[in-house]
Amino acid sequence: MTPTLETRLYEAVARVRTHWRGSRLIDGLEPGVDGTRALLDVARIYRANRLEIGRMRPLLGRAVAGLFFDPSLRTHTSMEVATGRCGGHFVYLQGGEATWKMEFDEGVVMNGNTAEHVKEAAPVLSSYADVLAVRAFPRTHNRDETVIRAFSRYAGAPLINLESALAHPCQGLADQLTMADLGGGNSFQGKKICLTWAPHPKPLPQAVPLSVVRAAILGGADLHVAAPVGFDLDAEEMDRVAGFAADTGAKLTLTRNQAEATKGALVVYAKGWAAEDRDAHAALAAEHGNWTVGDEAMRTATAFLHCLPVRRNVIVTDSVLDGPKSRVIPQAANREPVQAAVLLSWLL
Amino acid sequence: MTPTLETRLYEAVARVRTHWRGSRLIDGLEPGVDGTRALLDVARIYRANRLEIGRMRPLLGRAVAGLFFDPSLRTHTSMEVATGRCGGHFVYLQGGEATWKMEFDEGVVMNGNTAEHVKEAAPVLSSYADVLAVRAFPRTHNRDETVIRAFSRYAGAPLINLESALAHPCQGLADQLTMADLGGGNSFQGKKICLTWAPHPKPLPQAVPLSVVRAAILGGADLHVAAPVGFDLDAEEMDRVAGFAADTGAKLTLTRNQAEATKGALVVYAKGWAAEDRDAHAALAAEHGNWTVGDEAMRTATAFLHCLPVRRNVIVTDSVLDGPKSRVIPQAANREPVQAAVLLSWLL
Amino acid sequence: MTPTLETRLYEAVARVRTHWRGSRLIDGLEPGVDGTRALLDVARIYRANRLEIGRMRPLLGRAVAGLFFDPSLRTHTSMEVATGRCGGHFVYLQGGEATWKMEFDEGVVMNGNTAEHVKEAAPVLSSYADVLAVRAFPRTHNRDETVIRAFSRYAGAPLINLESALAHPCQGLADQLTMADLGGGNSFQGKKICLTWAPHPKPLPQAVPLSVVRAAILGGADLHVAAPVGFDLDAEEMDRVAGFAADTGAKLTLTRNQAEATKGALVVYAKGWAAEDRDAHAALAAEHGNWTVGDEAMRTATAFLHCLPVRRNVIVTDSVLDGPKSRVIPQAANREPVQAAVLLSWLL
Repeated sequence: MTPTLETRLYEAVARVRTHWRGSRLIDGLEPGVDGTRALLDVARIYRANRLEIGRMRPLLGRAVAGLFFDPSLRTHTSMEVATGRCGGHFVYLQGGEATWKMEFDEGVVMNGNTAEHVKEAAPVLSSYADVLAVRAFPRTHNRDETVIRAFSRYAGAPLINLESALAHPCQGLADQLTMADLGGGNSFQGKKICLTWAPHPKPLPQAVPLSVVRAAILGGADLHVAAPVGFDLDAEEMDRVAGFAADTGAKLTLTRNQAEATKGALVVYAKGWAAEDRDAHAALAAEHGNWTVGDEAMRTATAFLHCLPVRRNVIVTDSVLDGPKSRVIPQAANREPVQAAVLLSWLL
Repeated sequence: MTPTLETRLYEAVARVRTHWRGSRLIDGLEPGVDGTRALLDVARIYRANRLEIGRMRPLLGRAVAGLFFDPSLRTHTSMEVATGRCGGHFVYLQGGEATWKMEFDEGVVMNGNTAEHVKEAAPVLSSYADVLAVRAFPRTHNRDETVIRAFSRYAGAPLINLESALAHPCQGLADQLTMADLGGGNSFQGKKICLTWAPHPKPLPQAVPLSVVRAAILGGADLHVAAPVGFDLDAEEMDRVAGFAADTGAKLTLTRNQAEATKGALVVYAKGWAAEDRDAHAALAAEHGNWTVGDEAMRTATAFLHCLPVRRNVIVTDSVLDGPKSRVIPQAANREPVQAAVLLSWLL
Repeated sequence: MTPTLETRLYEAVARVRTHWRGSRLIDGLEPGVDGTRALLDVARIYRANRLEIGRMRPLLGRAVAGLFFDPSLRTHTSMEVATGRCGGHFVYLQGGEATWKMEFDEGVVMNGNTAEHVKEAAPVLSSYADVLAVRAFPRTHNRDETVIRAFSRYAGAPLINLESALAHPCQGLADQLTMADLGGGNSFQGKKICLTWAPHPKPLPQAVPLSVVRAAILGGADLHVAAPVGFDLDAEEMDRVAGFAADTGAKLTLTRNQAEATKGALVVYAKGWAAEDRDAHAALAAEHGNWTVGDEAMRTATAFLHCLPVRRNVIVTDSVLDGPKSRVIPQAANREPVQAAVLLSWLL
């Protein structure tokens, strides 16, 4: 007898829990290799049966509070839709003036312009919501994870990082699902994945490229990271994820040669990020205008990915983005099922 | 045996679909004469059984994304309530800074202040939501429909225009429902409807007056449009809607004489719009301060309508608005049922 | 036979209705002594069975519109979660630019910068929503209740005040629930409650301290209010609430001596509010820096409360707030059940 959808969903969620009992998704490594695979299985079930699962209302009576200190289109919408479709209620909160200006430092005499300390905000929101989700880009420097760390410390509820300085774990999960789709269904094990730096006028943090690296290593890819001199990824974070490669058979190659890195790749994943010398970013980025991904870079590659939003004709040409190799829309669409999978794994 | 509410609702929705298979509501003419009548029947069923239909959850598991580039009270609330009451989930998105500044031009090198192209935004939102709804007033000139046209081109999901430069189709549907209520229940066929220009300090676009014209023509009214010299409605749009008059028996009279136009009218619908010479608007509008609708203009008319928000004692006097002939509140209330009807016709 | 949860909930709601038939919660005195007690019983049932009640969907097909003219974290989130968890739909509306700038004066010629009059906004929102909730801090002076009074006058739907100049009734209900928890379960009758002024850089209105007074009087407390010379609470409001003391056995002591007031108190409730001479606030408040609640003030008291957000080391020291006597998180958590109780009492 074929198991019902409900049974399949519950069993897939149960498999996540045998590998991952945690209630934090901050850098995306938390579920581990097996937990991540199990999460992606839940996501596939959700994706193939979205409306039917929506009618099952698995999150009935549950609330998710999303606190956004920074702009969002995909993350906000996909998180809210994943929650709402499953019968839960999503509260969108705009960080800053629409709530109260928040204090993150300890021991401060709060007689200035901050009105609420995270030591109250995090537990209070945890009392209303079954899950918190927080988006906070870095303020002071590109490794500044003050906000998400403070919430992780003081929130009693399960917590999802919706992009911080160093990680965008939901993007990482969606990327794995997308790369596995391209790799033949359930895996991109051993496939060549190219992450290439590309020009961007702003010195962006490394949340996405580091999450791509983590995704590729967790999935056992043959990962090639191409970036010009002066644009190396954060060494500490790269070291941490390298530890997973032994378990997954992943390989990591760092190169200055975009052409080499893209050659024959299953995926060319482009992203801009800041120069190590942040103040010199504009000048250095301008020197490497030829790193814009165009048809030539894609010639022998199978698919183009980007987390979006993407600056057309700066990161990548119209011709690639509007061409048959671009998979950025299904990639963005995969945000909803992976986030639903995380919520279901915590709340079902 | 009396059919159940559920049966009546499904049958009414099925009738809409026999006349209208499209998935765009942009200028309001799309459902055609018969499709519009069928939509209004669905709206009447919803209106008479709002709580019961709410408990039936006809939109369970469905999501609607509403992207607002401009302010809204009625449109946002009625759209969100219609979705939520039916069991669907509505995501409110603020266009601009809370999401990402959006690019609408083709072929642009995006190294300026726009971060996301509509060519990505529209299909990505379509992947999460079952219906998109977009509100974008004109930016550059009063015929500028860039935003809604771009979404219509690139959105895979059904799309509702929540007010653009030239159309406010949900307002038009609510106006038809309201005028039919006043006309004796199901129709205002052959009734005199007066649309009159009224003073407003700003050179407003013609979305609402053109939608009133379309509503009146679709409903077969004897429409009188009164406006001073220099305030004619858009000729191209007027020509397009005139084509429907033959099917509905509608008549159209253009006049400079507000008193003539309002005389014995079932409805006096007031609205301010820009002078054809937009730069001369303030001066020209000031010359016609006596076009404010007051008790004298309403003497022989049955009902006063306005889309709201309305500037009191500029468009219309307190005495009319607070008097027994004002029907602006039931008119605004009709927004919820007509929008529910559109959603149900697409998603049930 | 034990009654089911559903039966218990319906019976508790019915008891509220025998005491309170009104549809306004503006200053918090409306439900009266018995109605308030019955409301708190509903809140306790909700709090103990939140997820199960969420799955019962008692507010299915219902909509609540929340209009926020001012910032909010707790109030917005707890109101939205209470509505959504019960199966209703909550629409968050930002007052001001995201909606339309609103006019509250009567008889105005609206040719300036306000676009919509509350005389339309309130009934229109009432037509979409089953309950309205409005948050509007005072604009001109600390007794300015223009906004909530206008909504109360023109809204056809039941209306909850989410904080105005003189009242924060949902906070008051949560405070009663919290004080009753501390008092041994269902009551703090006869217990010593200390409300103490504390320094704050801004001349805040008295909404919260007056609601604490109302809460303590309704609950029959032995209330001690401590404030320096020049910081007396509003005499008119104090007189009005005093009328309830006869029914509840409450006692009220006003003092300049914080140490006396806190001694042996069950609750020390700190709050900053403006000097009677608002312009002299900064100077006067600075003179009383030693009113910050610290360990010494809490030595013989049982619990510390504050409505939050709280300025650490200005209103209260880190050591009290992070210590075992602080009950501010459960106090904030009590917002959800009391607000759910109000909604259920109106809509079930």
